[in-house]
Amino acid sequence: MTDADLPFDLTKLDQLAEVIVRVGLNLQPGQNLLISAPVEALPLVRRVAAAAYRAGAGVVTPLLSDEEVTLARYRHGQDASFDAAAGWLFRGMAEAYDEGAARLAISADNPMLLKGQDPAKVARANKATSIASRPAMEKITGFETNWCVASYPGRAWARQVFAGIPEDEAVGKLAEAIFAASRLNNNDPVAEWSAHDARLQKRMKWLDDQRFSALHFRAPGTDLKVGLADNHSWKGGTGVTKTGITCLANIPTEEVFTTPHAQRVDGTARASKPLVHQGTLIENIEVRFEAGRIVEARASSGEEVLQKLLDTDEGARRLGEVALVPHSSPISHSGLLFFNTLFDENAACHIALGQCYSECFTDEVAADNAAIAASGGNSSLIHVDWMIGSGETDIDGIRADGTVVPVFRKGEWA
Amino acid sequence: MTDADLPFDLTKLDQLAEVIVRVGLNLQPGQNLLISAPVEALPLVRRVAAAAYRAGAGVVTPLLSDEEVTLARYRHGQDASFDAAAGWLFRGMAEAYDEGAARLAISADNPMLLKGQDPAKVARANKATSIASRPAMEKITGFETNWCVASYPGRAWARQVFAGIPEDEAVGKLAEAIFAASRLNNNDPVAEWSAHDARLQKRMKWLDDQRFSALHFRAPGTDLKVGLADNHSWKGGTGVTKTGITCLANIPTEEVFTTPHAQRVDGTARASKPLVHQGTLIENIEVRFEAGRIVEARASSGEEVLQKLLDTDEGARRLGEVALVPHSSPISHSGLLFFNTLFDENAACHIALGQCYSECFTDEVAADNAAIAASGGNSSLIHVDWMIGSGETDIDGIRADGTVVPVFRKGEWA
Repeated sequence: MTDADLPFDLTKLDQLAEVIVRVGLNLQPGQNLLISAPVEALPLVRRVAAAAYRAGAGVVTPLLSDEEVTLARYRHGQDASFDAAAGWLFRGMAEAYDEGAARLAISADNPMLLKGQDPAKVARANKATSIASRPAMEKITGFETNWCVASYPGRAWARQVFAGIPEDEAVGKLAEAIFAASRLNNNDPVAEWSAHDARLQKRMKWLDDQRFSALHFRAPGTDLKVGLADNHSWKGGTGVTKTGITCLANIPTEEVFTTPHAQRVDGTARASKPLVHQGTLIENIEVRFEAGRIVEARASSGEEVLQKLLDTDEGARRLGEVALVPHSSPISHSGLLFFNTLFDENAACHIALGQCYSECFTDEVAADNAAIAASGGNSSLIHVDWMIGSGETDIDGIRADGTVVPVFRKGEWA
Repeated sequence: MTDADLPFDLTKLDQLAEVIVRVGLNLQPGQNLLISAPVEALPLVRRVAAAAYRAGAGVVTPLLSDEEVTLARYRHGQDASFDAAAGWLFRGMAEAYDEGAARLAISADNPMLLKGQDPAKVARANKATSIASRPAMEKITGFETNWCVASYPGRAWARQVFAGIPEDEAVGKLAEAIFAASRLNNNDPVAEWSAHDARLQKRMKWLDDQRFSALHFRAPGTDLKVGLADNHSWKGGTGVTKTGITCLANIPTEEVFTTPHAQRVDGTARASKPLVHQGTLIENIEVRFEAGRIVEARASSGEEVLQKLLDTDEGARRLGEVALVPHSSPISHSGLLFFNTLFDENAACHIALGQCYSECFTDEVAADNAAIAASGGNSSLIHVDWMIGSGETDIDGIRADGTVVPVFRKGEWA
């Protein structure tokens, strides 16, 4: 297959590569770049490599994954294999970031790849990878270098999102959705992202100025008080790395988000969309929190995977992120379930189980892991977002003195 | 493109994967495996991954390269880019070997990929990579873990070897040549390799017992005395790693080889086949050695690339390997120029510029870099084989007392 056979507009793919390099990564002259992507995303990987070299990249290193090689472990691997991981690769990546390399992850995979595999093996393999990748992930979540997650319309992914239509048509539709959400429908997407970022920065400033101690979510099935971490700070849109580079870590992005207090979350939450976790669709999640900890969890399907996820470690039952996204966001408007966190989390308010982001604290706290923990920041091997927002979501902000301020009404900024 | 479109016998590809895992790597239960390969070789990479997991592999990590990404640097990269390298990746690979991972490299690339690129940039990029990869390469040349180099019939490579016929036909012919050279034309290729290895081991034992101090090569254009390193040991076929695993590092392999003395090579040598180095065809090489060092070098084409290669470092002008291959070897019989060292070096006697193999010394010396140097072992960032043997090659072995023993006559064992 050549590029000419791809059922979408290749000039848009060129634009996406430019936006990734110039806005997403804001790649600096001389920076090395690591790109992890499935093999299928090569048409985008190649364009990003070209754009990166034009921007003065040192060396661009693709780390290409292949779904058949991934599946080979489940089909042929012996039991001990599922506790193995390529620790050397993640330690190497951590070193690369220390030396100033930027990181791009391109998401295009089949969200249902591991459907039908033994959930216990999937959980073990993921836990081994989580432990092995921690040195590298911490540098990413800690914004020690510039990074970006973007996406490419993979065929199996497109078939999942647009079931029942011919594959080429599905890929074309997914490509259009990705290009639209990535704000390419304009002659100057770089300027478009700049304006969007300014709007997000304004929301974050308002939320920071309010100094809420908690957010109270109400929607059908949800009555949840999410205490916010002491010294929390709202983030969204572009961020600045510890090395002083302004980058946009998610393309697309619509959210503003901060850190909940790991011990101060109480009440019930019902998922507003299914969660796709490692190839399993987890539907109709309902959980109850007590003092920050999930003490009850149910799902109408995929519950075994959900329970295994919650059992990963102590922090897996506590929140590491809370994010606000208006119901009118362009991705929400598409009405699609993308089976992909990068999109679905930007369609609705959401919370995330697991590891918090150190960047979501005030500067004095952000550099100090002990201070983050003391402020209520959660720690875990996992970070899994799930959607609780919808057009029916009301959110109040609660200040330390008990003052209640409307934040969202019927899914929109109040 | 799916596997069913490949213009060769897929059962042979399954066999090749099994031979690689069982004979080439002799992968042990629990070993992790790194596979570096071009994306095009995925059909073989997937089969090797499956065979490796069946053999009890821990985790198989593919490191897939893409020719378009490689070319992007030459097309778009700024000048400083050509001194950059992914040192983090090679340091990580070295760590993986320390932790017991096995290594497979699959060769399938277009041998002429970098033809037409600025040789100075090619040389700089390769030097940067050689320096960065040294920690990993030393563990491979030192046999600190089990490794194997094998090959896959890439399309551009096939077009080069079989010019002027339709591409599918060329790929089919290259596949047949690879399968034949890899001794798959038999129901039990594992047993076939075992018998071939026994023949090579017998030759090595004879050569070791002779304790030659030099080999004297004579052929049209060649009159070369290659002093052998003190404490040299002949190798070939399977070898035993420092961790005690018997593996076959090259598939195919026909050679027996040892270490020349870096200061004791004198005379002239004319290449019997063109050398393909980093996309350049270097034809009709003629060199003159004095006291181990190349003091004159000419080529009818590609001389600039040859001179840059010789200027890599001091050791690049001295020999690190001398290898004996009878003219009747199956690969030589094919009459093809493969533009690929793995094949062409197994079609003719050859010498290699640059780094020596520590395994080609007696046990007491092999573990000690200072003892290797004192015995005459060469050290360099490069290791480049080139062919000097043909059906006209005579070789005498010379003992320390001056006794002359015929080794080859007219290209065959005497």
